[in-house]
Amino acid sequence: MSREAAFIDGLRMLAGHQAARGLLDDAAVLEVGGEALVLTHDMLVEGIHVLPGQDAADIAWKLVATNLSDLAAKGAEPVGVLLGHMLGDDDECFLLGLAQVLGRYGVPLLGGDTVAGGSPRSWGLTAIGRATHRPVPGRSGALPGDGLWVTGELGAALLGFEALRDGTGADSAAYRRPLPLLAEGRALAPLVTAMMDVSDGLLLDSWRLAEASEVSIAIDTAAVPIATPESRRLQALSWGDDYQLLFSLPPGTQPPVPATQIGQVEQRGFVPLFVDGQPIANAEGLGWQHN
Amino acid sequence: MSREAAFIDGLRMLAGHQAARGLLDDAAVLEVGGEALVLTHDMLVEGIHVLPGQDAADIAWKLVATNLSDLAAKGAEPVGVLLGHMLGDDDECFLLGLAQVLGRYGVPLLGGDTVAGGSPRSWGLTAIGRATHRPVPGRSGALPGDGLWVTGELGAALLGFEALRDGTGADSAAYRRPLPLLAEGRALAPLVTAMMDVSDGLLLDSWRLAEASEVSIAIDTAAVPIATPESRRLQALSWGDDYQLLFSLPPGTQPPVPATQIGQVEQRGFVPLFVDGQPIANAEGLGWQHN
Repeated sequence: MSREAAFIDGLRMLAGHQAARGLLDDAAVLEVGGEALVLTHDMLVEGIHVLPGQDAADIAWKLVATNLSDLAAKGAEPVGVLLGHMLGDDDECFLLGLAQVLGRYGVPLLGGDTVAGGSPRSWGLTAIGRATHRPVPGRSGALPGDGLWVTGELGAALLGFEALRDGTGADSAAYRRPLPLLAEGRALAPLVTAMMDVSDGLLLDSWRLAEASEVSIAIDTAAVPIATPESRRLQALSWGDDYQLLFSLPPGTQPPVPATQIGQVEQRGFVPLFVDGQPIANAEGLGWQHN
Repeated sequence: MSREAAFIDGLRMLAGHQAARGLLDDAAVLEVGGEALVLTHDMLVEGIHVLPGQDAADIAWKLVATNLSDLAAKGAEPVGVLLGHMLGDDDECFLLGLAQVLGRYGVPLLGGDTVAGGSPRSWGLTAIGRATHRPVPGRSGALPGDGLWVTGELGAALLGFEALRDGTGADSAAYRRPLPLLAEGRALAPLVTAMMDVSDGLLLDSWRLAEASEVSIAIDTAAVPIATPESRRLQALSWGDDYQLLFSLPPGTQPPVPATQIGQVEQRGFVPLFVDGQPIANAEGLGWQHN
């Protein structure tokens, strides 16, 4: 086990049984005064999660949008955010992007911290939401017999990343300004048995859903809508940043939002994931690992 | 106005009127299901808030303790924390310190994020608490006629910092492992008109309390208990990291915890702060500015 994996395991032990299934992947659910609050915290690091020199307005957008996407996967409506910001030369742009994304989703800035720093800069955001449906959907509820579904198309963020990196002038919005599917998450929450957002690649995130639910998942890659050319299908399914919703529905249930069935949930076999019938024994290389 | 100040002003505008008085200083208060939640987020940056090469167990302790201190100043009991962690070679030590501080205060780790990074590393922590008294104490309630009080001694963290920096072998625990005054904050919350923790120096934080409350504060420096030699009294009152509680009480009210009256709240004069009768017109140099 790598040192990183050992550390994350240590955090999971600290967090105890309830959170252990999802800590550092899934948002936390906290019961307060008869409400279920959903809490999530994500960091972005320059050079790792955002390109060096990327427009700070886009960084602010992505920082907020990725956390709101975690709320969307819980069917939660945002209540507010706390910002951890490392000051830089482009703070005016950051502020603009922050105002845009908070305004777009009607989310108040509740507080936070600003610090001096250096390169690489980093940012943190905590988003707080209110669950709209109980039980709050998680990764662990998928049942054998369920269908596996996904919203939208995969690979759009990959194309956007390449356009931005290479300066081709092609549309890079899917990478720079992802759209958290808050309304879709709320509509799906009462129906799904499990749900998560696709932040690290469809195949890796499907693996995680299978692991959390103690089932096997069989994916039919040809069924997955992709934004890339056909020749790049597997890459589109292994690339992160699309922030579509991945969910399981009981047999016969139709989703109330546009979505595509891409596979089946099965009794746990000898591996968590089957891709076009091939057993996948190891998550290595399936997608974007979490650091 | 500096670019930093302009940015923070921009954030305050984004946060709207209610949070504007305290944003990025004070913890946020959120009404949820009949409860008042208190939310705070602080970052630590290597080389700025912690010494380069400082024991990661102490970094973890301080990261949690400083956020719990913000809850203490609201009379809130901790409900949980979310961690933003940049991975490094000393993660095992970090985990140990994290387990120690969470265990000491009985606070669950709810979730968070781990990221790869570089130097300088940074860490973020969001602490969530439940207010034990309404109205929740803030910085803005001090009234002319109130006494100004502080718990404990100031300057202990300064001595601890010097001991650690210079490797003298003297006790550095006050700097490395501050103790959030959670029980004291809860005992004081029903009685105080305003309260905050002293994170950036007694004089600067008194200035901020006066500004938020739209009053003037007169401090008698000789009355302040200090941990340093008498010759370093002013330095002890300008140094941060002590995490004592600073609060105002109506005349005649005695605090239920050990504390010392160090000044008076007065009608707003031409400056917010008087130190031994001298008017202070500018916060510059009063303490540790917030980045």
